[in-house]
Amino acid sequence: MLLNAPSVERLIEAFRRLPGIGKRTAERLTLHLLATQSDDAELFISAIKEARTNVRRCSRCRNLTESDPCAICADAKRDQKTICVVEQPSGAMAIEKAGSFRGVYHVLHGVLNPLGGIGPSEIDTSALVNRVRESGATEVIVATNATSEGEVTAMYLAKQLAELNIRVTRIAHGVPMGGGLEFSDNLTLSHALDGRTSM
Amino acid sequence: MLLNAPSVERLIEAFRRLPGIGKRTAERLTLHLLATQSDDAELFISAIKEARTNVRRCSRCRNLTESDPCAICADAKRDQKTICVVEQPSGAMAIEKAGSFRGVYHVLHGVLNPLGGIGPSEIDTSALVNRVRESGATEVIVATNATSEGEVTAMYLAKQLAELNIRVTRIAHGVPMGGGLEFSDNLTLSHALDGRTSM
Repeated sequence: MLLNAPSVERLIEAFRRLPGIGKRTAERLTLHLLATQSDDAELFISAIKEARTNVRRCSRCRNLTESDPCAICADAKRDQKTICVVEQPSGAMAIEKAGSFRGVYHVLHGVLNPLGGIGPSEIDTSALVNRVRESGATEVIVATNATSEGEVTAMYLAKQLAELNIRVTRIAHGVPMGGGLEFSDNLTLSHALDGRTSM
Repeated sequence: MLLNAPSVERLIEAFRRLPGIGKRTAERLTLHLLATQSDDAELFISAIKEARTNVRRCSRCRNLTESDPCAICADAKRDQKTICVVEQPSGAMAIEKAGSFRGVYHVLHGVLNPLGGIGPSEIDTSALVNRVRESGATEVIVATNATSEGEVTAMYLAKQLAELNIRVTRIAHGVPMGGGLEFSDNLTLSHALDGRTSM
């Protein structure tokens, strides 16, 4: 930015702190919010404040919600005995969009990352273990991401849950639907082969 | 978004109003701002407010600035007699980044768009004409975008400035540097041919 305006630089920097926003996008968004004919800036500020005030974590599944328990935990038609564990609310959202899962969620709000100083206490797996024990859940589906942190977390959770005598499963990893083999990376292909099922 | 949380929906909508932000990006940014461990939300709100308070238009060139006149208009080393007309502050920023232009700017904050109800009074070309007259400028470079609105605006400005007996030029349109002919669209290639120069 070459406007010689420190407050503009700071707004660009604030945008750049958001995930996936690069320098060019940050500049474009900043200039948009500064366009005087636009009332987007005020709308935007009040939307952030309102959401930050109203949204909390569900005391049962820890997903983001305005009511407690959240709509999914409160839904008698959902299978409360099948708990899908995700890293972040975005994971639960993605699975809800897919539309086929009828159980409930547990949001970790993080993954184990020993190098980054994130240990079991930071992601509070005891809340999950207690919940499984108290709710009489029969299956925990571990849907942490297919990253090294997600895999480590999945293994740790499986160990924590082993003594509870329930089914602990991991979502399948493999070639995406509609994806050609030639577009899949080596690790995905190895996973797809290892995870082959009878037909 | 399937959180059943109206204030989250409203924040997603506020993000989507920003240029170039789609549904997925808006959701990602919203979830980021709602992550309680993040203080980005407060930083962000104060950065928007501060920039909106401090930034105004330069009384001379109408570019965004914190000081008036802006740093470029106040710079004795810049050629104040060569005025480059751009649609938006982002255009001036792009040319400044290129680094070769030593003149000054005039920001229209819009383009003529008769179908959209934007006429000459909305973009206030009289300010430019008066400025050229008073400053004794010798050249106006019209750098509006290569869109139909930008071209119409360029032609209109040329007509307005014709009587002032100065040089009025338009930036060249053609094949981008490093761009292969096979990647250029027909209109760009036609422009590149029409605008050919002797070598």
